[in-house]
Amino acid sequence: MSQTPVLIILAGGASSRMWPLREKSLMRFGTQPLLISQLQRYRALGFTEAIIIANPENEADIRTLAGQMSAMAVQVAVQPEPRGMGDAILRAEPLLAGRTQTPVYINQVHDVVDDSLHLNLLTAYQTNPGASYLAGYATETYFPGGYLIVTGDGRITGMIEKPAPENRPSNLVSIVAHIHSSAGVLFDAIRAEYARDVPTDDHYERAMDALMKTLVFQVVPYTGHWSALKFPWHVLDVMNYYLSQISGQMVAESAFVARTATLVGDVFIGERVKIFPGAAVVGPAYIGADTIIGNNSLVRNSMVLNHCEVGFTTEVARSYVADHCAMHACRVLDSVFAPGVNFSAGCTTANLRIDKGPVSSVVKGQKFNTGRDKLGAIIGRDAFLGVDVMTMPGVKIGEKAQVGPGTHVHKDVPEGIRVYVKQVLGMVEGDA
Amino acid sequence: MSQTPVLIILAGGASSRMWPLREKSLMRFGTQPLLISQLQRYRALGFTEAIIIANPENEADIRTLAGQMSAMAVQVAVQPEPRGMGDAILRAEPLLAGRTQTPVYINQVHDVVDDSLHLNLLTAYQTNPGASYLAGYATETYFPGGYLIVTGDGRITGMIEKPAPENRPSNLVSIVAHIHSSAGVLFDAIRAEYARDVPTDDHYERAMDALMKTLVFQVVPYTGHWSALKFPWHVLDVMNYYLSQISGQMVAESAFVARTATLVGDVFIGERVKIFPGAAVVGPAYIGADTIIGNNSLVRNSMVLNHCEVGFTTEVARSYVADHCAMHACRVLDSVFAPGVNFSAGCTTANLRIDKGPVSSVVKGQKFNTGRDKLGAIIGRDAFLGVDVMTMPGVKIGEKAQVGPGTHVHKDVPEGIRVYVKQVLGMVEGDA
Amino acid sequence: MSQTPVLIILAGGASSRMWPLREKSLMRFGTQPLLISQLQRYRALGFTEAIIIANPENEADIRTLAGQMSAMAVQVAVQPEPRGMGDAILRAEPLLAGRTQTPVYINQVHDVVDDSLHLNLLTAYQTNPGASYLAGYATETYFPGGYLIVTGDGRITGMIEKPAPENRPSNLVSIVAHIHSSAGVLFDAIRAEYARDVPTDDHYERAMDALMKTLVFQVVPYTGHWSALKFPWHVLDVMNYYLSQISGQMVAESAFVARTATLVGDVFIGERVKIFPGAAVVGPAYIGADTIIGNNSLVRNSMVLNHCEVGFTTEVARSYVADHCAMHACRVLDSVFAPGVNFSAGCTTANLRIDKGPVSSVVKGQKFNTGRDKLGAIIGRDAFLGVDVMTMPGVKIGEKAQVGPGTHVHKDVPEGIRVYVKQVLGMVEGDA
Repeated sequence: MSQTPVLIILAGGASSRMWPLREKSLMRFGTQPLLISQLQRYRALGFTEAIIIANPENEADIRTLAGQMSAMAVQVAVQPEPRGMGDAILRAEPLLAGRTQTPVYINQVHDVVDDSLHLNLLTAYQTNPGASYLAGYATETYFPGGYLIVTGDGRITGMIEKPAPENRPSNLVSIVAHIHSSAGVLFDAIRAEYARDVPTDDHYERAMDALMKTLVFQVVPYTGHWSALKFPWHVLDVMNYYLSQISGQMVAESAFVARTATLVGDVFIGERVKIFPGAAVVGPAYIGADTIIGNNSLVRNSMVLNHCEVGFTTEVARSYVADHCAMHACRVLDSVFAPGVNFSAGCTTANLRIDKGPVSSVVKGQKFNTGRDKLGAIIGRDAFLGVDVMTMPGVKIGEKAQVGPGTHVHKDVPEGIRVYVKQVLGMVEGDA
Repeated sequence: MSQTPVLIILAGGASSRMWPLREKSLMRFGTQPLLISQLQRYRALGFTEAIIIANPENEADIRTLAGQMSAMAVQVAVQPEPRGMGDAILRAEPLLAGRTQTPVYINQVHDVVDDSLHLNLLTAYQTNPGASYLAGYATETYFPGGYLIVTGDGRITGMIEKPAPENRPSNLVSIVAHIHSSAGVLFDAIRAEYARDVPTDDHYERAMDALMKTLVFQVVPYTGHWSALKFPWHVLDVMNYYLSQISGQMVAESAFVARTATLVGDVFIGERVKIFPGAAVVGPAYIGADTIIGNNSLVRNSMVLNHCEVGFTTEVARSYVADHCAMHACRVLDSVFAPGVNFSAGCTTANLRIDKGPVSSVVKGQKFNTGRDKLGAIIGRDAFLGVDVMTMPGVKIGEKAQVGPGTHVHKDVPEGIRVYVKQVLGMVEGDA
Repeated sequence: MSQTPVLIILAGGASSRMWPLREKSLMRFGTQPLLISQLQRYRALGFTEAIIIANPENEADIRTLAGQMSAMAVQVAVQPEPRGMGDAILRAEPLLAGRTQTPVYINQVHDVVDDSLHLNLLTAYQTNPGASYLAGYATETYFPGGYLIVTGDGRITGMIEKPAPENRPSNLVSIVAHIHSSAGVLFDAIRAEYARDVPTDDHYERAMDALMKTLVFQVVPYTGHWSALKFPWHVLDVMNYYLSQISGQMVAESAFVARTATLVGDVFIGERVKIFPGAAVVGPAYIGADTIIGNNSLVRNSMVLNHCEVGFTTEVARSYVADHCAMHACRVLDSVFAPGVNFSAGCTTANLRIDKGPVSSVVKGQKFNTGRDKLGAIIGRDAFLGVDVMTMPGVKIGEKAQVGPGTHVHKDVPEGIRVYVKQVLGMVEGDA
């Protein structure tokens, strides 16, 4: 009988493209941080051992989370510097000392997929433990990722990074969901690539290319949900996945729902939540513990985590709102709020361009098409927006930034900065 | 026994004073375009034949509408150039060839009156088919129109156009609702005026003046509702008339009304309308098919036609909203929206001057007192207003205009133009 | 048996620090003006005679109010010029002619306290009518007022005005609630001080200091509610006191409360009030006669007096709104509105500084820390605020001022002045 592979979960990638958001592993899409949610899923599927690759910044948090897992052996390794995925994987080697024959299953914490992907890979491996297995996301739509070169019987002979659309070797995009039949063989191959003097940091991919020459790599095609947290607006995609897992109406006994409040569709209402008269929560929606949905407010297709105030006549639509945010008589549309954001009365996250075209956003100085027709704002931790602030589609606001009343925010606001309007007033004797 | 007069319905007048709105005959005040609504009313009163005078621009639409009428013979004539009402009436002559003795009943499509006006004229004519009959709107309030000169026994001896208030010959204002006992006699008299070299274009009135010297014209006084679509804000008057015809609550079986939604007074709720929790429709009100009244919104004393979205916490009060308009968390007050207007979150049509005086509006370069204490905006087809736009009382916005977020619109915006605010921002280190 | 002291109620102090509000005695905190409310309370406690000291400005109003009191002898004296509290008290002397032995109980109309303060003073006096009695507000928190110097057995030996916190002679702050055992003795002492050539206007305090050398003054400590109307934001404190007196739900029979409206907690709903669908009144709250709470509006912890319109989706929170105010789709937070204020759609009284520090306000040219973390605006009679106006925390707006649409009000607006935004617009060809 085959062994169950040891999970190697990559959680040490830099989060700088997620600005103004922070550490992906810690983001909660429901009750648990993403990392815990992923580990619980693996455990439910039969995995019993995981090694998480952290970085020096998130190591402490990840160790804390790892310590919360029972019925699963979870270890943490740290990649001291960002030297590529191959280097990250090698950090697992000391923790597998003396177990070079063990199979390993490499995943990224920020890839969110259906159980079926993991199950199908595992089944394929158990059916023939002699081969390695890579997931291939089957899609006719062009995607700027790596494409698998596959023979008729599903054997992978190579990978091409971001081919031109017309040069795609298959319809199979590489997802980092890889079962390698032997950890030791993999580590050796990666190490060999780091020993070579090649300037690019695709050591892991090159190691696999080398291994494919002698070993069998089989594709396991996949057509289910796949979202990856690379850019901050991807939070909305991952949120939607988790929202889709809510089924029926789960209302905590300690929650209060007013007689004239309305719950529609699939909703999760946490402990001590208060839903005041005239408010509505329209599913799929998740309302975290101790959050207040004020009179005549509306939350739909959204997550509002714990200890938030969704004040009078606020609308939260298709948005992710983290803990301790305060909103009041405002419109939060297609937006992502880190914890502690204050969004005052009359504020609106404009979410639609006048030309109704796709919304773009600037990441590390470069303008990206977000691929979204509707996108509001991404707002960092503890930012304060005064009354009547309006953010333009795709704008981002740094942590602890302060936006004065009535400001139109047309471009990203750095952290800790205060922006404000210089309004020019006239004054005359009144006419009444 | 007398003949029933053939209707001559003038529908070819220019609509330029209605800018940014278009063709009056096609505007719907309920389920039907105004022209159809008027024709159905005439049919119900016993008229069996109508000739509609179109212009080259609206001919196609009017022919299509005319083709929809059953149980009534409807023909269309076209006035090629705007050469006055007399010329328009003469266009009916070929369609009445060989029937010079027939009585004709001249009306304007954009005059909206009670049935009683038509009935009383008809009864008067049937009682004595030898005379002609003109309606006279009896009012002590001064009105800048034509006044009838009437003898003690109700015979009309002439008409004075816009007399000074102190020189009014009677309290009877001329409405274009005229039964002439003989089409041929009328046509000849008009033609005679066009043959004369008089610079003014009041040939029809002059023709009647001439006829009054030999024939009997009797006044039929009228004190009911009269509104005429001359300026775009008159849409609200005509709307009010049609709203007043709604009696009781007519809710389509296919409509959805949430448990906590409220219907008050006389309302018409069309097919597949959705009225979401906490919303209210306060009569008199008309909600057209496939329109959504979002959570906690309010529509009162208004028409919202088909396929509209009245989004979360929007108020539509005393306003006319045509098909396919989208509104969201905004205030539409005393306003007229052509089809396809986008009115974003936080927008308001200010409807009251600070001095609470009557609202004025500019038409073809000239400022008009609209006579309304409350008037919002008149917005043309497919205009897009971004978030937090505020329109000043009486402002008009052209078709496909774009108004940037936060703009205060103080004067009319031409069609296809984008206006936007240049906001001056300051930026300092934050203090928190 | 002792006599019941004659009340001397000081109501003649200048209200200039209350700008833009007016006469304190006339402000209603519920159904009655403050003066009547205070007199009714004294009457219920057993007082039978009162002398009110007015000023020339409020004399007429105060005489009218005094005339409304039955079962209590109420006289009015006038202090012609603001020459200090001692001078004010002396104005009562002619009305007590021939009764120099009578005890007097000196109070200020604008001090709002619990019944227990009056009762305890009265009881102390009745137990030993030979002494005089001053109330002492017992508090460890520093308060910038007069402190009593008290011996171990409660005898007062002097008073220190605004000592440094570390030099407080006791924890007892002087409240103007003073029973003097002999009117004549008091008047003589005060008169003696006015005869001396001392530049400060603390004649009354100096007179008491002098009397303390020979007569016994006892302190009556007090720990209940005490609020005094000195600055306009104190209206909110006094309001809170009166709100706390409402117990249960008192809804007038003539009031209308819609099926989907909500009443929570202790609320008073006056005659003919209309509470429309989806609205909520959350106690403690007072809604005066003939006021309308519009659809989906919210009033909480507030007083809204008579004939107001709280229009669609308005929030009134922790605010005092006098008669005949009109509000519409706006946020009135921690604010005070004099009668007749128009607060248009989209207006907000910002109530929280971005740095969340205490709000300051300028009174007679001097900046005061209001001691409040949340404070909105104080708005004078008949001011008109156009749509989308935003007032900064602590701002005041004068009577009949006009604030143009979209204005951010950062500093006080004088009465009768119109302020407005000069918005700079750009205009280009549209792109759609």
